[in-house]
Amino acid sequence: MNLPRPIRKLIESFEKLPGIGPKSAARLTFYLLHVPQEQLDEFANSLTGLKKNTVLCSTCFNVSEADPCPICSDSSRDQSIICVVEQPLDVLAIEKTGRYKGLYHVLHGVISPLDNIGPDELYIKQLLDRLTRSNLVNEVILAMNPNMEGEATSMYLAKKVKGHLQGKQEGERAGGIKITRLGQGLPIGGDLEYADEVTLTRALEGRREY
Amino acid sequence: MNLPRPIRKLIESFEKLPGIGPKSAARLTFYLLHVPQEQLDEFANSLTGLKKNTVLCSTCFNVSEADPCPICSDSSRDQSIICVVEQPLDVLAIEKTGRYKGLYHVLHGVISPLDNIGPDELYIKQLLDRLTRSNLVNEVILAMNPNMEGEATSMYLAKKVKGHLQGKQEGERAGGIKITRLGQGLPIGGDLEYADEVTLTRALEGRREY
Repeated sequence: MNLPRPIRKLIESFEKLPGIGPKSAARLTFYLLHVPQEQLDEFANSLTGLKKNTVLCSTCFNVSEADPCPICSDSSRDQSIICVVEQPLDVLAIEKTGRYKGLYHVLHGVISPLDNIGPDELYIKQLLDRLTRSNLVNEVILAMNPNMEGEATSMYLAKKVKGHLQGKQEGERAGGIKITRLGQGLPIGGDLEYADEVTLTRALEGRREY
Repeated sequence: MNLPRPIRKLIESFEKLPGIGPKSAARLTFYLLHVPQEQLDEFANSLTGLKKNTVLCSTCFNVSEADPCPICSDSSRDQSIICVVEQPLDVLAIEKTGRYKGLYHVLHGVISPLDNIGPDELYIKQLLDRLTRSNLVNEVILAMNPNMEGEATSMYLAKKVKGHLQGKQEGERAGGIKITRLGQGLPIGGDLEYADEVTLTRALEGRREY
């Protein structure tokens, strides 16, 4: 097809995004033809500035404008809990609940041998260092995604953290650190009838007394 | 939520696109954090250049790098048929079939009183002018979308073109211009059982002898 080059180039850029196929890419591009130039420029500036104007917090490795990030530098937050998540987007999801007042640690991925991602590609060492440094932490919540890679990473981390702390307890720390994971079961608004077997099994295992 | 401003800005830009909600916008933005800066810059350049480096063809009003566009300036194409479409994307769709060798005319919208879009907001006058200028055209295909606005625009155009040509026929043009519309009926790969009544009615009306 003889599409003008500027259009073809933008379609190609959109196509590289996850979940956007050739048809959506073309639709978005042709939509943008009807948009004021200022909106295009603003979009472009946001793109170029995205990485230039952000850093990773050197404590929790969340994306931030400042180092340390607002969460790590907020002394009103509970310094005794660290919630370990895969991605910065997961921090956002948990913050939206408004129920978690502890700290975070972002791994930036999961262990996935098929994609050549081992423990060393993630911020796991930094998590262990952080636990060594701090005497305040008494709970680590492993909040990985409930899929195969997430579960595997979760199990690896649980073992690693436990081993790491045992080595340490002989030294300075007396009390252990609790390692927890998120509850699994029926999602709210979900339908028992349509729940898959694994979810339902987890819901049964995780049943709680009234 | 305390999202870093560069991230918030890009999410807002994505949210303005059709079919991209707050969740997709955030997902795309956080995805782009993992992408090389060059890819971001290329994306940004495509955006700023999209409108700067394209023009509307002054004959068919399709988006193009040059005026006249490659289709209008291609003398090997059948100059006797003009296919009228709503958007440049429709030209692309028809070109992809590889079966149409005539010319196009892009209206850049449909008549939609609810959105304050009347005939004067579209390139309808330019279509009539084009028919007046050219003595080669003997068929106008009205290829609007098969929905309410599309049908209304189609009917309006059919009446308008006929009226316009009648006024003209007295003058120079002897033979009339055929006005056609695209066939309507069952889409290929569709299922008779799941077709809606209107589509099925159109399929019955439009049945053809073997």
